[in-house]
Amino acid sequence: MTAEVLEQYRQKIQSELDKVVDFWLKHSHDKQYGGFFTCLGKDGKVYDDLKYVWLQGRQVWMYSRLYRTMERYRRPEILEAAKLGGAFLQKFARDETSSCPDKCAFCLTRDGRAVKVQRTIFSECFYVMAMDELSRITHDKEMQADAERMMDQLINWVRFDSSGLGRPKLPGDRPVNSMAVPMMLLCLVDQLTEGRTEVEKLTELSAWCVEQILQHIQRDGKAILENVTLDGKELPGCQGRLQNPGHALEAGWFLLRYAHAKGDAQLQTIAVEKFMDVPFNTGWDTQHGGLFYFLDVDGHCPTQLEWNMKLWWPHCEALIAYLMAYSYRKEPRLLDQFKQIYDYTFSHFSDEEHGEWFGYLSRQGDVVLDFKGGPFKGFFHVPRCLYMCEKLLDGLLEGQVSSS
Amino acid sequence: MTAEVLEQYRQKIQSELDKVVDFWLKHSHDKQYGGFFTCLGKDGKVYDDLKYVWLQGRQVWMYSRLYRTMERYRRPEILEAAKLGGAFLQKFARDETSSCPDKCAFCLTRDGRAVKVQRTIFSECFYVMAMDELSRITHDKEMQADAERMMDQLINWVRFDSSGLGRPKLPGDRPVNSMAVPMMLLCLVDQLTEGRTEVEKLTELSAWCVEQILQHIQRDGKAILENVTLDGKELPGCQGRLQNPGHALEAGWFLLRYAHAKGDAQLQTIAVEKFMDVPFNTGWDTQHGGLFYFLDVDGHCPTQLEWNMKLWWPHCEALIAYLMAYSYRKEPRLLDQFKQIYDYTFSHFSDEEHGEWFGYLSRQGDVVLDFKGGPFKGFFHVPRCLYMCEKLLDGLLEGQVSSS
Repeated sequence: MTAEVLEQYRQKIQSELDKVVDFWLKHSHDKQYGGFFTCLGKDGKVYDDLKYVWLQGRQVWMYSRLYRTMERYRRPEILEAAKLGGAFLQKFARDETSSCPDKCAFCLTRDGRAVKVQRTIFSECFYVMAMDELSRITHDKEMQADAERMMDQLINWVRFDSSGLGRPKLPGDRPVNSMAVPMMLLCLVDQLTEGRTEVEKLTELSAWCVEQILQHIQRDGKAILENVTLDGKELPGCQGRLQNPGHALEAGWFLLRYAHAKGDAQLQTIAVEKFMDVPFNTGWDTQHGGLFYFLDVDGHCPTQLEWNMKLWWPHCEALIAYLMAYSYRKEPRLLDQFKQIYDYTFSHFSDEEHGEWFGYLSRQGDVVLDFKGGPFKGFFHVPRCLYMCEKLLDGLLEGQVSSS
Repeated sequence: MTAEVLEQYRQKIQSELDKVVDFWLKHSHDKQYGGFFTCLGKDGKVYDDLKYVWLQGRQVWMYSRLYRTMERYRRPEILEAAKLGGAFLQKFARDETSSCPDKCAFCLTRDGRAVKVQRTIFSECFYVMAMDELSRITHDKEMQADAERMMDQLINWVRFDSSGLGRPKLPGDRPVNSMAVPMMLLCLVDQLTEGRTEVEKLTELSAWCVEQILQHIQRDGKAILENVTLDGKELPGCQGRLQNPGHALEAGWFLLRYAHAKGDAQLQTIAVEKFMDVPFNTGWDTQHGGLFYFLDVDGHCPTQLEWNMKLWWPHCEALIAYLMAYSYRKEPRLLDQFKQIYDYTFSHFSDEEHGEWFGYLSRQGDVVLDFKGGPFKGFFHVPRCLYMCEKLLDGLLEGQVSSS
């Protein structure tokens, strides 16, 4: 009976992934300048030609990963797209005006000139993901070394000297452990170490990341807070009370993968009970369904205007989280949670008419922004979710636990 | 008959202004560190103690203006509050880490340490407004000179050398005429020149501002676009297509005041027909009422998540714009527009229970963020609107055109 249900999920998810891949192959490639358009209307038409470095890197990664690990995507056009995207990034991502040679821009013109630079690490993180995964299919050792050099720079910024990021040191700006940073680095360690012999530097880094992530468990285990002090205490004000349920759920499956690989049962339980069940239970809108985008742990109204909107990516992360938890633990209630999220997600975000998913719904579940790609939505969360879920379902249906 | 209607408006607006002033007098003063709390919940409780420099400056300006120009607010507690806010700003607003001695922070801790600095001019603009208006009631010549020095710095940043703002020069980041900048400077000239003999530098500046604002009339006069090139052409992409109806309406009444003072009938007509009627007609939601926050001139979906929300301040600006237009031109249709906006605004934003206005509604008109003050909502747009409208109604009811 369960196998039948899982098979239905697998078929739907497979066909959805195919449609999503087709959508981006068809609409997003810039044949003139290389790289990808990501501002795509509901029917795929380009409505802006700016190129966001996060999204360029993510698309290169996703194409390369699909090519490497899924038989049906081992197609020349996908390899070609990944390579052209990678070349665009290698040529244009770095901000030549920065005093730091590896600082990357956030946004480029269509032909690759820097428009905006963020004083954070994320463009560089997606650069690493892209280059490492692409080098695995092209067997390009120089590209792999490029990714590793950038990773060293990231570690240096985060753990030793952030001055190259260009942030001014302000007397009232206290250092914060923002969950995004250790999460992202843990994800990169996972990427860089897959199938390779252990590198001590990265093993130590992943343990540090896990420790940093666990500091976000607050209020006697009843809340995951997005920002804490460097020694794991609660911060005052809105910043300290902020909850981002989708982000916590994403951290949840990162931790769960890590714990599973290490065989750490205690950490597995923390991942599921603290980083999945807590944000799911507090973040689910019992009135209209779906996950809120932001919440305040004390019940104040968040100051983010979009706090009560339903965004696609928290739902993607929640799907991966619960299906992974089920695949490792086989507790039926985890599959029930998956079903609840799946039903909402597929009935609200997926666009039957033109393919791909809408990204931004009102609290009530109506489409508010009708484009398929924008400055923060590219070829990443939707296909990564479908890809991960398909792999997990493959594993479950073959009666084994998948770890890819 | 019209007089009766105007008198009803005046009474409602007077009593609303009293309630709003009481709300901020009661809840926002930081008796320990000086300055104002602006993150106030629906009942006035402080939910965050960060101090936003824009809002500190605006509150000083508003208290001082009310004290100076409205008999019933010439009260010691209002003078005292304005002075304490001014002292806090003079002591803490400037970012001591900047290479530019007049660069101000965007956000401070409760005790005045810089948390965040924006590489724009707006903290400094509100500093000028605050210090000039406050110096008018305290007769503090040094403070007035402080405002004038800061104004010179602003003019230098905007027209001659922006390097002190700290923005990196990026090869793809083309210079833009963003409507906020000339609008803000025009507003400051109005502030600094009131009741004073003409200063040539400022007369020339205001003419330059008007010219810059008029460049935003695009599409054969059928659209006001928020961003244009430095020579007044349309920019490509989302940035170029962006419309912000509330902002255009605010520019409308700035222009109208200027045109009225100059006796420039042609500019008056442009102010009303282009900067009021165009954004009002394109920006009004015929289905649910209220003004959209952002629109794309070609009908694409804006990428701002809040594009279809109804914010308090565009409605404040629209009320001032149409009542001012009516007071100068006496065309009944202008009063009808005012009524339409008034009816929506007072029935949706004003909070009968705790006083003050909600700031952020869904497209359908439901309160989405229930606080009364936040990082961008302070003691400014609501009281300035009520103050301006009361003055305009006074003028209309006395049978004369008010210019205050």
